[in-house]
Amino acid sequence: MQRLEQQMTFVAEAGLLKGVLRQTMLTRPARRENSAEHSWHLALMAQVLGDHAPAGTDLGRVTAMLLIHDLVEVDAGDLFVYASAADQARQEAAERAAADRIFGLLPADQGASARALWDEFEERRTPEARFARALDRLQPMLANIQADGGTWREHGITADQVLAKVTLIEDGSPELGRYARDLIERAVRDGILAPAPD
Amino acid sequence: MQRLEQQMTFVAEAGLLKGVLRQTMLTRPARRENSAEHSWHLALMAQVLGDHAPAGTDLGRVTAMLLIHDLVEVDAGDLFVYASAADQARQEAAERAAADRIFGLLPADQGASARALWDEFEERRTPEARFARALDRLQPMLANIQADGGTWREHGITADQVLAKVTLIEDGSPELGRYARDLIERAVRDGILAPAPD
Repeated sequence: MQRLEQQMTFVAEAGLLKGVLRQTMLTRPARRENSAEHSWHLALMAQVLGDHAPAGTDLGRVTAMLLIHDLVEVDAGDLFVYASAADQARQEAAERAAADRIFGLLPADQGASARALWDEFEERRTPEARFARALDRLQPMLANIQADGGTWREHGITADQVLAKVTLIEDGSPELGRYARDLIERAVRDGILAPAPD
Repeated sequence: MQRLEQQMTFVAEAGLLKGVLRQTMLTRPARRENSAEHSWHLALMAQVLGDHAPAGTDLGRVTAMLLIHDLVEVDAGDLFVYASAADQARQEAAERAAADRIFGLLPADQGASARALWDEFEERRTPEARFARALDRLQPMLANIQADGGTWREHGITADQVLAKVTLIEDGSPELGRYARDLIERAVRDGILAPAPD
């Protein structure tokens, strides 16, 4: 039963992701989203939006990647996507240490696979990782639009900053990239996202 | 773009699952779990505990099933697993109506697949549905143990009532069924679950 006990320890530890709050605001209920909910929503998006991934993308692998991509936040917490470069470098180091600890709870073979999958997501070299990262960037934009500006408004983010993030979406799915550009244009037109400063 | 718009409408609607509270108590943070978090945790469990599924079980299908299995609760809400038979019959009718509406938001081909997957989960005839249902039953038990009795204590549930739910776990995975029986025995011994009344 040792294998099963290790798996259950990991499952219990993973559950702590329900307590890691992200910047993203939900409207119903009105509160910050947590990383467990976010991970579920992304995995569901992979199923629903899979036909906008490049041909040949392994959606099962994308889904598996999305289910574990934020587990490191159990230790490292969530960092806002518009944080400074210095903060992002610190976060990366904390996340690597967290990956060592958390994936290390699993039986060795499973831990190594899960860690490799997480590394793949971070390195963004395969079509699967690129599509997963595209969804991870798109979901907060959708939430901000539903929340009438959400974190854009709260942090005074302007359209040029949001557009700079769209390249990562285009890189994973040209079609979703176009959709995101349209969303941003419409958000500026509707006054829920400030235009780029002159 | 009509296909993509329908998919995005579905994704946004699905997000409302973050507001559907379940009975299960979390300890960190101390609050009720919602159905989006629950769905993520189950999908992660399918990845981690897959080697305890019967040989030949398609884990990708199990995962897809778990990601959508509770979407009907956006309309129908969550019903406690120990509710009366009359309440359960009412819930089933409400869930079928919800499935018609929510899966109907998707492009027709995708809606039909998602609905078939949800029906498969409900009917519990395939190995995939049985394993998915086993995880769905096991996860609240794990949470109750972490929460020092949780909903068992809150609702005065006794060991015989919990044991009656274990058959569904055994049906999907004999090994996880044994694990659940051990858990329950230990919970009674540790005084966090009341023994069966005489």
